[in-house]
Amino acid sequence: MSEKASFYRHHVFFCCNQRPPGERVCCNDKGASELRDYAKQRVKQLGLAAPGKVRINQAGCLDRCEQGPCIVVYPDAVWYTYVDEEDIDEIIDEHLVKGKIVERLRIR
Amino acid sequence: MSEKASFYRHHVFFCCNQRPPGERVCCNDKGASELRDYAKQRVKQLGLAAPGKVRINQAGCLDRCEQGPCIVVYPDAVWYTYVDEEDIDEIIDEHLVKGKIVERLRIR
Repeated sequence: MSEKASFYRHHVFFCCNQRPPGERVCCNDKGASELRDYAKQRVKQLGLAAPGKVRINQAGCLDRCEQGPCIVVYPDAVWYTYVDEEDIDEIIDEHLVKGKIVERLRIR
Repeated sequence: MSEKASFYRHHVFFCCNQRPPGERVCCNDKGASELRDYAKQRVKQLGLAAPGKVRINQAGCLDRCEQGPCIVVYPDAVWYTYVDEEDIDEIIDEHLVKGKIVERLRIR
């Protein structure tokens, strides 16, 4: 079943789900959309935004709300949480550029 | 880098991007959101909607518009196009249930 060549080497999905006010907390309450935009821009600046390289996408609820805000990097199937641009930078620089998992931000 | 255990055995992303009228064709013009809803419902009925099993998500533009409407199944990194509920049924029954790639609908 596994595929050697993935169309995107790293395909990153940001949960950008927005729940109505009063419901349980969601990733978008914690800045998911803004940090997705930031990641997309930074990956573009680094020349990584292309087939064979990296794609940053928004996604609906990834159903890990309690651990969020969360992203998942495929095909690696590695999940992260993050707080700010510094965390996003580290995920980009370490995982997406160098291929090293950022254990500090990882969720399982 | 690769992980043995993926949080979802099959994590399926439907490109549900909607471009403004007059721009190039997009997945949502071809029924992506409706068929995502259909897939989500069917996976739930089959008892597959759970961690360790299957997750159906919407996503922003996966940037394969010309080949769309498209979905990608991770961590397998297998891409499909589809036309109708029958195609979605085949992807669910063959790939998500039995683990067999549906070559007829595959895009590379």
